[in-house]
Amino acid sequence: MNVLAVAGSLRTASINAAFCRAAARLAPAGLEITVFHGLGDLPHYNPDLEDRPPAGVADLRTAVVRADALLIASPEYAHGVSGVMKNALDWLVGFEEFVNKPVAVVNTSARAYHAYDALLETLRTMSATIVTEASVTIPLLGALVTEEAILASPTVSSQVRRALISLASFLDRDGVAGPSFPVGSR
Amino acid sequence: MNVLAVAGSLRTASINAAFCRAAARLAPAGLEITVFHGLGDLPHYNPDLEDRPPAGVADLRTAVVRADALLIASPEYAHGVSGVMKNALDWLVGFEEFVNKPVAVVNTSARAYHAYDALLETLRTMSATIVTEASVTIPLLGALVTEEAILASPTVSSQVRRALISLASFLDRDGVAGPSFPVGSR
Repeated sequence: MNVLAVAGSLRTASINAAFCRAAARLAPAGLEITVFHGLGDLPHYNPDLEDRPPAGVADLRTAVVRADALLIASPEYAHGVSGVMKNALDWLVGFEEFVNKPVAVVNTSARAYHAYDALLETLRTMSATIVTEASVTIPLLGALVTEEAILASPTVSSQVRRALISLASFLDRDGVAGPSFPVGSR
Repeated sequence: MNVLAVAGSLRTASINAAFCRAAARLAPAGLEITVFHGLGDLPHYNPDLEDRPPAGVADLRTAVVRADALLIASPEYAHGVSGVMKNALDWLVGFEEFVNKPVAVVNTSARAYHAYDALLETLRTMSATIVTEASVTIPLLGALVTEEAILASPTVSSQVRRALISLASFLDRDGVAGPSFPVGSR
C-alpha cells in the first residue's frame, strides 16, 4: 500500500515535514510512505489552466493517482490553512481521481484547530474519504520538532505508528481495492 | 484616501476581479481604489524567506503600506479560502505595518460563507481592523459577473457604492490619520 505524505509548509525545519519523514520511517510492514516535495513547484491555482495543467500540477496529480491514500500534516497560519497547502488542494478540486481518495490528516499542534477543521471541511467538500481513525492530533512540542526527535520519543513514535496502523487497516479493509474489485472476491 | 483592492482569484473572468474593477469606477469622491494585480507573481510563502522577502512580496508590502485600507473580494474553493488569497495573507502575517490596517471584505456569493468566515477569522488574527459596515455580501449572480454588468445594474452598483461610502466614512473618522497623528490636532 502506497501512501503519499504531504506537508503544508515549505520551511526547511518544518515540524510537519519532519513528521512526514518520521512517519515514512515508522510505517508498518506493507505500508510504503513517500514524502511529496513538489508543493513549492506548483503554480498558483488558476481555473483558466484546468484543461492544460502546468507541469508541477501533472506531477502532483500523478503522485495522487499512484497513492492508495494521502497523509497530510499542515501548519496553521493566522488561524487558517497555509496558502501553500490550500493551493495544492485547489489543483485537485476538479481532479476526478481525487474523489473517494482516502486521506488521513494529522494535526501536529494541540492548540491549533482552525486550520485543521478547515482542512477537513475542504477535503470533505472535495469528496475525499477522511480516515477518521488515522486523523489524530499528535502534538509535537518543544524538543519534538525534528525527525530524529520524533523517532527517539517512545510516546510520540508509538502515537505515529498507531495512526499509521489504523490507516493501513482501513486501506486493507476498505481502501486499496475499493469498489473496483467485485464484491464477491473480497 | 487610497484603497487597495485585492481579488483572490487569478481567473481572467473572475467575478471578484470584476467586482474590484467595478468598485474602482464606483468609488465616491475622495476615495481612490487601485486594483492589485500581483497575487500571481508572489512566491509561495516560506517562513525561511521572511527576512529577505522576494521581489513580489516587497511589491505587495509596499502597496499595503501606501494604502489607507484594503478591499478584499475572494472566491470560495471547496469551502475554503483560495490558496492564492491565503498565500498573499501569509506573506503579511509577520509584516508589522499590516497591524491595524482597515480591511473591508466583500462576499460576492450569498451561498458561500465558509471561505468568507475563514478570511475574516484570519484577518482578525492578523490584527487587521475589519471595517464591518463595509464588509457586506453583494451577490453577483447570473448576468452580474462582469465589470460592465455590475456598473449597469442600479441595484448592485448602489450596493457597491454604499459599501464604499461606509468605508470612506470609516477612514474619514478613524482610519487614515490613525494613531500616528497627535490626538490634540484631530
